[in-house]
Amino acid sequence: MTPPRFYAPLAGRAATRVELPDDEATHLTRVLRLSTGDEIRVFDGRGMEWRATIEDASKRGVSVLLTEAVTPAPEPRVAITLALAVLKGDKMDDIVRDAVMLGVRAIRPVISARTEIAAATIARSGRVARWQRIAVSSAKQCGRAVVPRIHDAVPIDGILDGEGSRVMLVEPAADARATPLKDVPPLDCPTLLVGPEGGWTGDEVQRAAAAGTMLMTLGAQTLRADAMPLVALTALRVQWDDF
Amino acid sequence: MTPPRFYAPLAGRAATRVELPDDEATHLTRVLRLSTGDEIRVFDGRGMEWRATIEDASKRGVSVLLTEAVTPAPEPRVAITLALAVLKGDKMDDIVRDAVMLGVRAIRPVISARTEIAAATIARSGRVARWQRIAVSSAKQCGRAVVPRIHDAVPIDGILDGEGSRVMLVEPAADARATPLKDVPPLDCPTLLVGPEGGWTGDEVQRAAAAGTMLMTLGAQTLRADAMPLVALTALRVQWDDF
Repeated sequence: MTPPRFYAPLAGRAATRVELPDDEATHLTRVLRLSTGDEIRVFDGRGMEWRATIEDASKRGVSVLLTEAVTPAPEPRVAITLALAVLKGDKMDDIVRDAVMLGVRAIRPVISARTEIAAATIARSGRVARWQRIAVSSAKQCGRAVVPRIHDAVPIDGILDGEGSRVMLVEPAADARATPLKDVPPLDCPTLLVGPEGGWTGDEVQRAAAAGTMLMTLGAQTLRADAMPLVALTALRVQWDDF
Repeated sequence: MTPPRFYAPLAGRAATRVELPDDEATHLTRVLRLSTGDEIRVFDGRGMEWRATIEDASKRGVSVLLTEAVTPAPEPRVAITLALAVLKGDKMDDIVRDAVMLGVRAIRPVISARTEIAAATIARSGRVARWQRIAVSSAKQCGRAVVPRIHDAVPIDGILDGEGSRVMLVEPAADARATPLKDVPPLDCPTLLVGPEGGWTGDEVQRAAAAGTMLMTLGAQTLRADAMPLVALTALRVQWDDF
């Protein structure tokens, strides 16, 4: 049984001692009720993980001694960034949790024509910070030593103007150029674009294609918007023999 | 744009006229506010679909005239039955909805050692009838002309004693005999067993293997129990080139 895992972004930077961030210290002392001398695991969110011993656990904070580097859980071979049109309500919470468990490297929330929530509302509501906390908790739970970064929400052009390969999930009827999953070739560090309730607009699909984005279909499936990211990520990883 | 679709299990049995079931009639008149002369689609839940015209829509019911058989949405090549350990609360609702959209042929709720809800509670609560209604509504929404049957909940032995091929999703550490997804061969009408929160017990895995069930792993993924069925169904369909 693996000891409980804690996220310490500063671990291993200079010394073999590290202070846990406040959230993590609270989790350790109040929820799991661990104390001085207990064995834990610490990961830095960038792929390093250690055995560690609690040196001091008090109201002031938790300090741990890193005793030995361990081999972290393997990351997927292909690092996928999920560029996801922001969904309504708290649907994004589960998607962030699941996408982290499915190995995404980062998540870029996207404002598309049919996104029903304004960029200003997202910024004001602290949603991105909440999704980042969910990403940390998901990484702790699933054994990843990498915490995917949750970026600030951007309009779709912010994704289409970027470098690197992109795949956009579209309905089969959306564009005659769309490639069925089984013909999607291996891509290096791709960004996977998944649309909102109601899908991408025709204009968005055209702009994506014009910007060199591969359009991909998952057969004739009709799926709920909140199931799409999980299905698309799974499908791509199996297609790329990366499961 | 396809006209709205309605489920009429008696359609096409003898005549070209059919009465919609009460739920469907209510949906047609009160929610969609359709009336005499409007064009709709009707499917029988077993794979047939028709263009139809509303002949009479009143408080007494809705009668429609089937005007022409149409080609229904294609079903997956491999008919998968999902044998799913019953999850807590209303988590099953979304899973039933998504599994129908992903093309399952039937769903068999399973009582396993770690299922936190008793068979008697499931029977008394009318959950199976609710899941069946969700399956109908999901089929209407996603364009399937087949409504998967939701069976009554059975203990896991009721699944293991049955005929036909079976695949059980297990953790990689659960059994050395477990086959990684990429080595799972094509199977005919398989039953896919997916466990509850906390997974199958070692005893359940042993009994399944002894009964000739293939044990399958999805790599080192740790996923939430409610995400598992969707991921496993997607993974198998891609693995079998059936998407």
